[in-house]
This record gives sequence, C-alpha cells and structure tokens, in this order.
Amino acid sequence: MRHPHDVEVPVRVDRADPAPLPAQLVQQLRDLVVSGALRPGDPLPSTRGLAARLGISRGSVVTAYDQLHGEGYLHATNGATVVHPDLARSRVERPGARPDPRPPAALPRRARERPMIDLTPGRPDTGRLATPGWRAAWRDAAAAAGSGAPPAQGSEALREQIAEHLRLMRGVVRDPQDLFVTAGARDGLQLLLAALGGLAGRPLRVAVEDPGYPSLRRVPERLGHRVLPVPIDDQGLDPARLPSGAWSGAWAGAGKWEVERAPDAVVVTPSHQYPLGASMPAARRLELLGWARAHDALIVEDDYDSELRYVGEPLPALSSLDHGPGTVPEPPSPGRRLGAGGHVATLGSFTKVLAPGLGVGYLLAPPALREELLRLRTDLGNPASAVAQDAMARFLSDGGLRRHTARMRREYRRRRDLLTVALAGVRGVRAVPMDGGLHAVLEFTGEVAFEEQDVVARAAAAGVRVAALGSYWAEGARGGRRGVVVGFGATGAAPEGDALPDALAVLARVLSAPGPGAGAAR
Amino acid sequence: MRHPHDVEVPVRVDRADPAPLPAQLVQQLRDLVVSGALRPGDPLPSTRGLAARLGISRGSVVTAYDQLHGEGYLHATNGATVVHPDLARSRVERPGARPDPRPPAALPRRARERPMIDLTPGRPDTGRLATPGWRAAWRDAAAAAGSGAPPAQGSEALREQIAEHLRLMRGVVRDPQDLFVTAGARDGLQLLLAALGGLAGRPLRVAVEDPGYPSLRRVPERLGHRVLPVPIDDQGLDPARLPSGAWSGAWAGAGKWEVERAPDAVVVTPSHQYPLGASMPAARRLELLGWARAHDALIVEDDYDSELRYVGEPLPALSSLDHGPGTVPEPPSPGRRLGAGGHVATLGSFTKVLAPGLGVGYLLAPPALREELLRLRTDLGNPASAVAQDAMARFLSDGGLRRHTARMRREYRRRRDLLTVALAGVRGVRAVPMDGGLHAVLEFTGEVAFEEQDVVARAAAAGVRVAALGSYWAEGARGGRRGVVVGFGATGAAPEGDALPDALAVLARVLSAPGPGAGAAR
Repeated sequence: MRHPHDVEVPVRVDRADPAPLPAQLVQQLRDLVVSGALRPGDPLPSTRGLAARLGISRGSVVTAYDQLHGEGYLHATNGATVVHPDLARSRVERPGARPDPRPPAALPRRARERPMIDLTPGRPDTGRLATPGWRAAWRDAAAAAGSGAPPAQGSEALREQIAEHLRLMRGVVRDPQDLFVTAGARDGLQLLLAALGGLAGRPLRVAVEDPGYPSLRRVPERLGHRVLPVPIDDQGLDPARLPSGAWSGAWAGAGKWEVERAPDAVVVTPSHQYPLGASMPAARRLELLGWARAHDALIVEDDYDSELRYVGEPLPALSSLDHGPGTVPEPPSPGRRLGAGGHVATLGSFTKVLAPGLGVGYLLAPPALREELLRLRTDLGNPASAVAQDAMARFLSDGGLRRHTARMRREYRRRRDLLTVALAGVRGVRAVPMDGGLHAVLEFTGEVAFEEQDVVARAAAAGVRVAALGSYWAEGARGGRRGVVVGFGATGAAPEGDALPDALAVLARVLSAPGPGAGAAR
Repeated sequence: MRHPHDVEVPVRVDRADPAPLPAQLVQQLRDLVVSGALRPGDPLPSTRGLAARLGISRGSVVTAYDQLHGEGYLHATNGATVVHPDLARSRVERPGARPDPRPPAALPRRARERPMIDLTPGRPDTGRLATPGWRAAWRDAAAAAGSGAPPAQGSEALREQIAEHLRLMRGVVRDPQDLFVTAGARDGLQLLLAALGGLAGRPLRVAVEDPGYPSLRRVPERLGHRVLPVPIDDQGLDPARLPSGAWSGAWAGAGKWEVERAPDAVVVTPSHQYPLGASMPAARRLELLGWARAHDALIVEDDYDSELRYVGEPLPALSSLDHGPGTVPEPPSPGRRLGAGGHVATLGSFTKVLAPGLGVGYLLAPPALREELLRLRTDLGNPASAVAQDAMARFLSDGGLRRHTARMRREYRRRRDLLTVALAGVRGVRAVPMDGGLHAVLEFTGEVAFEEQDVVARAAAAGVRVAALGSYWAEGARGGRRGVVVGFGATGAAPEGDALPDALAVLARVLSAPGPGAGAAR
C-alpha cells in the first residue's frame, strides 16, 4: 500500500464553477471510484496534502471526505483514509461488473446497526466542551461553595463578566446593575412577565413571532397571558403588523365587544429569526423601537444564538439602540410603565454556545423595571445555582467562553457547508440561507410535492430524526412555506460529528425518493 | 519586585492536624511576617498557584489570605497580594525592634474595621464541605455536561438518589416518579401554587405558621395569593385554629360579606417548627391530615432541616403518613382536586445541610398533582442546573451527603452545647430547647426587661449580628414571646467556627448589661 504522503489523485477545482468546492471534490472522487480508477483499499491523500496541492482550505477537503465517508465510498483506518474495502465484496459478487455508484455492502449493514441519529434542532455539540479550563472552573467553584449564596440579582462577578461579554460581542454598553442572572431564557421571560403583569394588574397581551420558538411562546400561554402571533417575513417581524390598539376590536364573549389593546410586550429574535434565519435590518429595528415607545410596550429580545454567527458581523443587540451611551433618550413622560427608561429587555443564555440545561443565563433589563425585578427576585428567590454562577464567572473571566465560541463557530460553519454540499443536488429542496447557528431549514420549493410529515416519517424510518417546519407556527396560516428543520449540533447517541455525513446522506436519499403519495408538483 | 509567578513561600499543610487548612496557612504566614522572613511589600504567591502547589482548594488559600488581609498583614494591590507596606512604617519608627506579632499600624484599624460576626440564622457552616468527594462530584458532572439537559421533572439518577435518601432519613417510601427536582424550597412552593392555582382558577388561600419562615411566606404573597397566618403553640401548628370555612365570614369590601373558604393549602414545618423548634406530635399530625382530607386541601411540609436533628430520632415526614405502602388510603371521591391521591407535598433542599444557593432541591408531590406539575415544568422549564443535578446525584450516590450530614450534626451539637454553656448564667434569658438545626432561640423570660431591638442594636455595636424573634411573626399578636434568634452555622467574614466562642461571649456580655432603658422586670 502506498503511503498517503505519496498519493496523488487526479482531481482539480474550478473556482468559476457555481458548485461549492467540496461538492466539486465529492463529484470527482465519486467518479474515480465508480470508474475503477480508485480501487477498494486504495489510500487517499491526506486532507492537508490535497488542500495544499489544490490551494484550497483544508476544511473543504475534510467536508468532501466526510461526505464520501457518509456515502460509504471512503473508510477511515488507522488515521488514513482509503476507498472502502467493502466495495470489493460487491465486485466479487458480480465479477467484471462496474461497481454500483451506491455502495451495496456498506449501506445495509449500517442501516441495521445504527442508533437513531437525532437532528432535531436546538441542541449544541458539547463534545468539545470539557476542556481543562471548563473542568477547573467548576472544580474551583465547587471548592468555594462555602462563600455563600449570591445576591438575589445574581453573582456580581458573573454580572460583570456578562456586561463585558455583551460589550464585546453584542455592542451593548450597560452597567452590571441592569443585568439579572437567570436560570435561562424561560426563567428570564417569566421574571419579566411577572414584573409587567404586576404593574399592569391584569393578564398581559404578548405578541410573538409566527413562526417562532414554541418553547418561549408556551411560557406566557401557561401563565395565563394572551399570546398574539404576528407573521414574519424575510426581514423578521414587521412592526406594521402588530396590533396598534387604536381601531381594532374583538368579540370578547359574554355579549360584549372589546377594543383590542396594543400588546404589552413583543418577543422577537432580531439577530437570527427562529427558525427562518432572517436578520432584522436597521430600519425595521428603529421602527420596532418607535412602536414600543409609542405604545409604552416592552420589546423582549431573545438573543439566543447570535454568538454563533459565522457569516459577517451580527447587528448589535436591540438593547444597544434603546438605552445607554450614544443613544437618544426618550423624553420622560410620567405615569407610563417604561417611560424614558428604555423599552428593550434582552434575554440571553449559554444554552446554544455551551450546553443545554446549564441553568445560567441573563436578562438585561430596562432601568424602569429594575426595582420591580429586584423585588421579585428577592421575594421569590433566584433559582440559578450559586456554584453554576461562580463556575460561569470563572469560565468567562479566563476567556474560556470566547475560545469555545470561536471554535464552535468554525465547526458549525463546516457542518453547514457539509449540509449544503450533501443536499445540493436534491430537486425540490432549497437550504434557506442562514448566517449562523446550529440548524438549517430545508424548504420545499414546490417542484416536488413533498409532505412534511411524510418526509419526517421516512427520515425517521431510515434512522434520522428531523423536525417539520410546520411545528413552528402557532396558527394555521403559514404562507405556504413547507420544509424540515435540521439541527447539526448534537447528533444524539452516535459519536458527535462523525454521524452527520451519514445522516445527511440518508436525508438526501429520503428527499430524492419521494414517498408513494408524492411525485407530482402542486 | 518579583513577579507573583516566581514567588514561593515556605508553608505546608498537615491533613492530620485538626486545625482547618486555612487556619494552618494563616498561622504559618503570620509567623513568616513576624519573623521577618516575609518583609513589607514582598509579593505572595497567587491563590491559584499556592493552592496547586499544596494540593488544596483555592478556596482555602483565599480564606487564609482574606483573614490575614483583615488582620492587616496582607494588602491587595493591582490584583497581586503583598505583605502590607504599612508594616514597614511601624518598623521604621522603632528601628532595630523585632516586628510586633500584632502589626501595630494595622491593628487599631482592624478593631475599627473588624468584620461583623454574623449570627443571623439559617446559614450553614460550609467550611468542611469542599472534601475531595465534593469536588470530584462537580468536576465529573462538569466533564459530563455534554450528556444533555435532564428531563423537565429532573435528573432520573438524582430522583432515585433522593427517593433513597427520603426512605433512609425520613421514613418515606415513594417512587422517584413522584419526585420533582427543584431549584430549592421556594421554587418548589411556586410550582405547587401554580398547579393548585391553575386547578382552582382563582387566587389561593394559603395558611402559614405564625411565627414562621418569612422567606417562604412571601412567596404566596408576592404571587397574589391570600396568606392566612395561624398561631402556633408548643406542639407546632394547631389544626383546630385553621379557618374551617363553615361558619366564618369576612367583610370583602365593595359592600359585601363573603363566607371565608377554608385554606387551599397550609405550609407547615412539623419536624422542627421554624423558628421555635417544636416537633408536631403524632396525634396532631393525624388531626392535620384529617383536616386536609376533609377540606380537600394541600399540606405543604417544609422539611428544611430534619437531617440535622441531633437529639433522638425525628418523626417520619408527614408524607409517610399520607400515602404509600402501609398507609390507609382515602376512599376515592370524584370531582375533588386531590381526592384519594394524598394530601401532603414535601419540600426539601440541601440548603441547610450543605450550602445556601446550591440551586438543587426536591418536591415530593401527591400523585393527583403529578400530571399538572409535569405539564408546568415542561412548559416553563426546570431551572435547576443540569450540572448541579448531576453533581448532587454523584455526591449522594457516593455517600457524600450522608457522611457530611453526620459530621455537621456532631459539629452543630457541639456548637449548641457551646451556646448553652456561654449563656447559662445570664439572667432573664432562656435558650428554648431545640433538638437540632443550626440556630437557637434565646427567649426573654421577663425577669429582666429586655427590648428585642435594643439587644439586637447593642449586639451589633459590639460586632455581633443576631435577629429579633419578633421578625418571624406576620401579625402583631405574639403571645408575649420575645427574644433573639442566634445562628451558629456560618459566622460571616470571620473564619468558620473560631469566631463563635468570641461572639457568644459578646452576646452574654450584652445580655448581662441591659441598656439604659431596661433593668426593671415588667
């Protein structure tokens, strides 16, 4: 066997070709195997060597190899990559025959033994989290557990670190005293609703994006507030579609009409709309802020994953527009709930960047709510573990979060590219452009008549779990958008990362062979 | 000046020495300064560096440095710690003299600035918590942080461990599926009130003990429920004094009378009434349970410190009477909220046994509420950190909690004896008999006309903080009981344990010399 160092394969890349570089490599390498130019057991060049020779990034080669690995053409052995030896068997069975481009021996075996690969969205890959710095932060925090419970507002050291994090990453310059440590985004939202509801003395009207994050929408519902879904477009939520309260009315039951009040609060994901990925442009942000000021309403900015943006720079958080140095303060107006104190609350957690269930997040509160929030926290307690708060303060102050975020951003970008390549040739499916995060939306273009639930069911039968796009809508009206949502963070029971090419190959196959009920375009 | 990285100081620790590690460090560092081996301005190693070299927790070094800082030996400057430069001045003033072991420049300052010894109740001594087992549990939990968020009900491994803990320590035999992991007692109470309130569809009436734990009483108040204080006697809460709902009425304002409903829930501390220490006898427990069954009301048992009982065995938790093997089940009655499913919910946390703010506790729920509680947890999220849950599961399964509890029980018993001895001869004061826990009530017998606030203020002026017994009553009527509540867990800024004899001597002195307004018996 030749040593990988000596291996050369006749592939080239064409930067003028609209197909992504990894896709070009995949196509050529697959053809080399199918044509017999590369034979079972033949070594491939190292990713580094091939990248150097072609003058492209190593990541592109890794992506291509991962894809071919998933398809069963390549096999990793002792650190080297070879053409899959199982391909030989299929040739032995049919001597002289040209090998089938879909490797027969490898696929059925994997299908039998493979655990379900869970690509439902929202769960980060945590396989690289447990660095020595991470473990040390928790160990030291545990050792210092005796230093007492942090204040109701949250650990001062952690709030200072988060303020610094928001300044550097989100363009928000605010005092740590405006930050509340939470147990996560839902805890922060509950706290905000309790404060607003207490001031209003009645159930609130809470506007949410539609489609949106079901988990956050259920919080106001469950707490007895009224949820108002507002349709989003390709610039995110449109403030013009928020109920203004001025002319609209609704049948309130019990024989009376009621003038609809404008929402008391609106929950938005301006940096990266969930799940469709839109980023709200500056003009619309200002419009939303103007709406909130006009109606004395609170904007709740769910800043769930903007650290994981890998294309360009995210716009600063909405909070940075609203209040703080350099912003134009609203003139004071007595008798209003929020008045001149700012109209944006930002919810953050480390769930998407670090790990789910960490139990530590934050709420950047408008100053007008600060006192009420503090009273609530004092009386009801802060559920965030003191040890977890301390550990996070240590992890942030040592730069651990910054390093981990940078690493994961690169990794998720690689995975997104992998997904783009794997599904590039599939008819009737379009990957919605997404600038960051750990999920992709595969929208059905209408060219092929897919049914969401049928695709989800057939993918599951083939061992891959994905979510129907329809599950993100609160109401029936969906503007005709259909598709599936695919996470590429954690992949369930299978070893992280490795399972993704396999799973994407399965998805591509499922989408390439529509079920019995499909086939004709609608 | 040498860089802290290079600094080494000749100190060592001896784990066989009964003195706590921080105390050993304090003694040796003080000696090094006094002997001139360390000179004014000399840098000390970083806490992290010294801890690593000695193989001890960083917290121990921080504690030692804090102590020496408080004594005036050390000085923090630009993030580094040095021997206090003021010590040089005192030596310059007396050339040739051996430096005074009590730094002259610093000491008068220290007397002025001496950290207040905080004996307000409720905070455990955490100085012995950071054992290798404790640290390992957290380190391993942090390393496994990738295993995903636990279910909404809480980690299965932890619920199994808690079920076992309740069986062994509290005589409660229940399935882990009836346990909910909480972020602490207040989180558990909020969850219960949300479930009951949702079923009732109106604000609840919640009876609480008077006197009682103010922190828990504020939860229903803050959530808009009506709180009904019920006087307690020396057997704890008397079910006969609970509003029955049958005959009582109240002016509801707006021109109408309203028949008072019986409470929907009653919050009790049957094992160890807080703060007066009564244990509810079996007859009264059965009476309370009968009352709850008759009124379809929920008993919320706040089992806050029964593990720390050092005299005799605590009665099993109320939950054990109500439901489960060996109990007489109530006949089913349709249309009732709780019906035959049991009428007791038990709230527990590890706050008193381990550390405050740990952020992990539990709720043992009556089966009839289980589904509603699970729905709430699923929709609103479980705020308890996944890492903290995992760490606690590991700590419990390794027997760490059992060992630590046994150790602290002995230690608190010793401290209670210390308190009894220190205040034995003080006229007009009686230590209320207390079978466990980490506080004592010093009741004024009336022999000397003490005023609570005067005693609290004079103790504070002498450097010791205690709480007025009056602060535990919700209403004016106090049955004439007056006194102060003294905690002997954590003692604030001073090194744990060591400060207690001093503080008790101060208290005895304050109580032996009544203020100007006192002196004559009432």
